[in-house]
Amino acid sequence: MNYSPRHMKWWGWGDVDAGFDSSRHPGFWPFAKKQLGIERETSPTPPAPLEGVELPEAIVKPRFLAELKSTLHADQVCDSRYERVIHAYGKGFRDLFRLRRGSAEGAPDLVVYPESEGDVLVTLRAAAHHDVMVIPFGGGSNISGCLERMENERMVVSLDMRRMRRVLEVDAESFTARMEAGVFGPDLEEQLSAHGMTLGHFPDSFMHSTLGGWIATRSAGMQSDKYGKIEDMVIALRMATPEGVLATRTVPNSSNGIDVNHLCIGSEGTLGVITEATMRIHPRPEARIVPAYLFPEFEGGLQAMRECVNRECMPSMVRLNDPDKTALSLAFKPAASQLSQTASKIFKRYLRVRGFDLPRACLMMTAFEGRRENVAHEMRRVNAIYRKFGGVSLGASSGKSFEATKYDFPHIRDFLLERDVTTDVSETSTLWSNIVPLYKATMGAIRDSVLESGVPPFSGCHISHTYRSGASVYFTFGFMQQVGREMEQYLRVKRAAQQSFMDHGATLSHHHGVGTEHLPWLAADISPLGVKAVAAIKRGLDPGNIMNSGRLQPSADPFEEWSRIGGPVKAKLKAKAKVQSQA
Amino acid sequence: MNYSPRHMKWWGWGDVDAGFDSSRHPGFWPFAKKQLGIERETSPTPPAPLEGVELPEAIVKPRFLAELKSTLHADQVCDSRYERVIHAYGKGFRDLFRLRRGSAEGAPDLVVYPESEGDVLVTLRAAAHHDVMVIPFGGGSNISGCLERMENERMVVSLDMRRMRRVLEVDAESFTARMEAGVFGPDLEEQLSAHGMTLGHFPDSFMHSTLGGWIATRSAGMQSDKYGKIEDMVIALRMATPEGVLATRTVPNSSNGIDVNHLCIGSEGTLGVITEATMRIHPRPEARIVPAYLFPEFEGGLQAMRECVNRECMPSMVRLNDPDKTALSLAFKPAASQLSQTASKIFKRYLRVRGFDLPRACLMMTAFEGRRENVAHEMRRVNAIYRKFGGVSLGASSGKSFEATKYDFPHIRDFLLERDVTTDVSETSTLWSNIVPLYKATMGAIRDSVLESGVPPFSGCHISHTYRSGASVYFTFGFMQQVGREMEQYLRVKRAAQQSFMDHGATLSHHHGVGTEHLPWLAADISPLGVKAVAAIKRGLDPGNIMNSGRLQPSADPFEEWSRIGGPVKAKLKAKAKVQSQA
Repeated sequence: MNYSPRHMKWWGWGDVDAGFDSSRHPGFWPFAKKQLGIERETSPTPPAPLEGVELPEAIVKPRFLAELKSTLHADQVCDSRYERVIHAYGKGFRDLFRLRRGSAEGAPDLVVYPESEGDVLVTLRAAAHHDVMVIPFGGGSNISGCLERMENERMVVSLDMRRMRRVLEVDAESFTARMEAGVFGPDLEEQLSAHGMTLGHFPDSFMHSTLGGWIATRSAGMQSDKYGKIEDMVIALRMATPEGVLATRTVPNSSNGIDVNHLCIGSEGTLGVITEATMRIHPRPEARIVPAYLFPEFEGGLQAMRECVNRECMPSMVRLNDPDKTALSLAFKPAASQLSQTASKIFKRYLRVRGFDLPRACLMMTAFEGRRENVAHEMRRVNAIYRKFGGVSLGASSGKSFEATKYDFPHIRDFLLERDVTTDVSETSTLWSNIVPLYKATMGAIRDSVLESGVPPFSGCHISHTYRSGASVYFTFGFMQQVGREMEQYLRVKRAAQQSFMDHGATLSHHHGVGTEHLPWLAADISPLGVKAVAAIKRGLDPGNIMNSGRLQPSADPFEEWSRIGGPVKAKLKAKAKVQSQA
Repeated sequence: MNYSPRHMKWWGWGDVDAGFDSSRHPGFWPFAKKQLGIERETSPTPPAPLEGVELPEAIVKPRFLAELKSTLHADQVCDSRYERVIHAYGKGFRDLFRLRRGSAEGAPDLVVYPESEGDVLVTLRAAAHHDVMVIPFGGGSNISGCLERMENERMVVSLDMRRMRRVLEVDAESFTARMEAGVFGPDLEEQLSAHGMTLGHFPDSFMHSTLGGWIATRSAGMQSDKYGKIEDMVIALRMATPEGVLATRTVPNSSNGIDVNHLCIGSEGTLGVITEATMRIHPRPEARIVPAYLFPEFEGGLQAMRECVNRECMPSMVRLNDPDKTALSLAFKPAASQLSQTASKIFKRYLRVRGFDLPRACLMMTAFEGRRENVAHEMRRVNAIYRKFGGVSLGASSGKSFEATKYDFPHIRDFLLERDVTTDVSETSTLWSNIVPLYKATMGAIRDSVLESGVPPFSGCHISHTYRSGASVYFTFGFMQQVGREMEQYLRVKRAAQQSFMDHGATLSHHHGVGTEHLPWLAADISPLGVKAVAAIKRGLDPGNIMNSGRLQPSADPFEEWSRIGGPVKAKLKAKAKVQSQA
C-alpha cells in the first residue's frame, strides 16, 4: 500500500521526462514571438538547481513529531528538501516564477503521507493538540494559490493524499463507485475501466490531480456538458476534521435539511480532509467523436451554442475559441505533411468562397460520446444547428489532434517562462445574455493593463462548459517580462481581468477555486454575509483554525495581502523562522 | 400590492370550496372499506367549528408590536383567531387530526404579511431585538411539521410570504427568471407563461405552495426527471437573516468556495427567510404526452426504469405503482361509461392471454414533454425498452385521467379522516440495487406495525423521481382509528417506516423535509458532525436563535419530543401562556 504516484517536476508542469517539444509544434514559437513583439531572442533561462532553492528554516515541534511517528511508518513522514519544495506551491504563475528563481518561501515544514482515514485522523488530532497547521495536498496542480503556507508562526504540515488511491466498491447496477480521495485521474479511470465504467471527469489537470482536490475546489472536466461538474457527481462523502468525521449517506437525493455534502465540496481544505467519496459513474462510451467546426465569427458560434441548449441537444463538450485563441490553436498544431498542407490551402480557398474573413473565423471543438445510436442522433441535430449559424465542419481529424494533445497545453507555460514570457489564465462564467459584453470588456481590460507596462499583449478566449443559463468564459494572456517588474506586471493584468469579471456580472472563477489569487473578490461574489456563514462553519468544524488557515476568509484589506504574495521575492521569508520547543 | 392568494381550509387540504367528491370516484370508498376491514359505516365526523378551536393564550410584547406597526400597514399585522389557526400547522396527519378535534396548540401569537424584503428585515430586526421567534410560512402545505411552534416561552410570529409574489425579471436569452419567494405555483406559472416560459416544478402541492417553501425544503416536482429538483434550478438567491441579507451572484456556475446557495436551500426557516431567487426556466413545451403502461410485475417495471437511465432516455416523469398502489389508482378512477367498461373487460381478457396475473400487475405513468421532435424520439426509445421488460401500453387516455386529477389526491385524506381513517405517507430515496430489499422491508414494517393495533393495514408504494443512481420510493398507508389511541397508532406506523429507511440504506425523506416528523433520524442521515456543522451555520447567521427554533437540531433524546408532539392533545397547551410585559 505504499505505492505513490510520481510528483510533477518541482519547477514546472508534468512528469519530469515530459515537456513542450517545440520541434513538434514548429509554428508555435514564431507565432508567439510575433504576437508578443519579441524581436531578439536571448538564450533560455533555466530554473535554479534544487540545491540552490531557498527554504524557510523549518519550524519543528518535537512532541508533535513524536506523536506522529508513534503511529505512522517512517516513510510516511518526510522533511527532505525535495519534499518540502515539491509541496511549497501549486502551479500558478506566482508559484512557478518564484520556484524558478530559487525561492520556496511557501514550503511546509513537514510532509505526511496518510495511507488511511485513520492516518488522517491521527495527524489532525495531533495537529490540533499541538497547534500545527495542516494543508491538504492532492496532485499539486492548483493554480489559484491554495497550497502555499500563509503564516510563519506555526509549524505547517502538508498532508499529501496520493497513497489513498483505491476504488473501494463499484455498484454497477446503481452506477456508483466509492473511492479514496487521493486517487489520480488516470489511476481512477483505469480502476473503473476494469468494471466497464468511467467517472467522466477530465479536467486539463487530469493527469496530475486527485478526486479529493477536484471536490475541494469544485472542478469542471472538459466534458462537463454531459457529465456535470464534480459537485454534480458526488453522492456521498467522508471528510475528516479536527472534530471527527463528517459522513453522508449513499442515496441518490434527499430532503434532509441543508445538504452537508455541499459544506465539504468547495471547502478548499479549510474544514478538513475529504478522505473518500461515492461518485456517480457511467458505462464507458460505446462511441466517441470530436469533430471540429469553423464559424465565420465569434457571435455566430455563441448563438449556435445557445441554440443547442434551447433545443436540448447533448454534446459532451462544446468549446468555441475566439479569433485570437483560434490563431493560437492553429499555431499549436503538430507539423503537417506536404499533402495536408496542400489540402489546407485548398480548404482555405473554399472558406473564402463561402465568405469567411479568415482572421475573424472561430474554431469550435464539439465532442459527442455515449451510446452509438445517441451519438449519431445528437451529432445530426447539432450539425443542423451549426449550419444554420454559418458553421462549416472541418471533419473529425482536427478533433483527433485535439484529443492527442489535450493535456499538453500547460507545458507551454514552462517553455515560455524559460524565455521570460509570463502567461496565465483567468476564467469565469456568465449568462448567455452577458457573454459578449463581458468578453469585450475583459479582453480590453487585459490588453490595456499589459500595454501599461509598454509591452504588446496576447490575449485570447474560449467559451466552454455549457449550462442552460450560460457558459464558462476562459481568458488566456501572455506578455514579455520586464526585468525586475515581473510580479508587478502580472498583478496588474490579473487584477484587471478579475475586476472586470466583478464589474460585468461574472463570478471570480468557474472551476479554478478561490485560493489566494481570487480571495479579494469573494465577498463581492457571495456577499459579506456569505463569507460570515462560511467562517461560522469553520468555527464549528475547526475551532483551533488548523486547517489551511487564511483561505476563504478575506481580511479587512484583502488586496494588501494579495499584492504582497510572492513579491518582492523573499520579503516574507525573512520574517520569522525558528525551532519552536513544545509549550 | 396587498393582494393575497387565499388560504386553504383551516382544517384540511385545498380551497374552501374544493374537496373529494366520492360520487365522481364511485369505486374508491368501497375499495377503501374492503382494504381496511370497515364493515359497519358510521356517520362522518365533521371538524370542530372554528369558534370552538382551543388556542394558546397569546404572548404579546407591546414594544415589539409597536415597532412593527410604526413601519408596516395595519393589514400586514394580524392576530385574529382565524389567522392564528390558519398558521398553526401544515397539513400532516398530526396537524389535521388536532385541528379537526379543536386544538391549535401550535398557533403563533401574531401573523405578519411582508410585502417587500424591507418588511422582512424590519420584522427580523425587531424580533431579534425583542427576542421574538419567527416561523416563515409559505402556502402552509408542509406535512413534516415545519410550521408548528415548538416553545411556549417566547412570543412567536408567523411570517406569511404570500404577498411577495412578483416575477421581477425574465431573461429569455439566458433562460432565467428572478422572482419573489412568496409566489404560489399557479401564479408563478401564469406570470412566466406570459413570456412563453415555465419553471417546470410541479409538486403534488403545486396549487398551495410557494417558491420559497420549495427551496427551503428541497422540494421535488412530478417532472423532476427532466427539470431536476428545486435545488438544481436555483441560480442565485437572497435570504434575509437577523444578521442582514445573504445574496449570491447570478451566474450559471462557480468555483467560489463553499456554495452558499446550498446553505439557504433546505434551511427550513432556521437561518432566515428566502426573499427572492433567480431560477432556471424553460420554454413552454411544444408537446406533452402522458401514456400509461402496465407491467406484469413490480421488478420488471423497475428494471425498465433503470434501463431507461442506462440508455440515457429522457422522459420528464416516470412513476411506477406497486400492485397495491395500482389497485388504489384504479379504484380512484372517475366513473366510466358503459362503453369504456366493456372496453376495459376486453382489455383485461387480452392481458390474461398475454400472461398477466392481474393482481400482480403494476401501473406505470410516463410523461414526455418538450420539443415535438424530441418527444417523439424519446417515446419511441422508451416504448422499446418497456416492451423488452413486458410492459403493455394502455395509451394516452389513462394519462389524461392522471393529468386531470393529479393535484386531487391530498383531498382523500380529509374524506378519510372524516370517516375515522388515518392515512399518511413516508417517502425516501435509495440506490437501484437497494430498491427491492428496501421496498419489501418497509412494506413489512408498515403492515406489521398497523397489525399490532389489531386493525388491517393498507399500504402501497410508488417509485418516481429517477436519478442515475436510483429513485424515490414513496409509501402510502392507512388504517382504521381506534378511539383514544389514534396518535399512538400513527406514531407506531410512522416510526416503523422511517426506521426501516435508516436500517435499509435510505434517507429520512426525498422531498418532504425534516421538520419535526423526521428530526430523530437526522443524525443517522448526515452524521452527528453534520448536525454540528448545521448548528454552526445557525450560530453565525442567527445568533439569537429566533428563526424557527428547534428545527434541524435534534435534542439529546430526539424520540422523546417526537413522541410528545400532539398527544395527548392539549398537554402542552396548558403549560404556559402569559402576557409578557417588555423587559
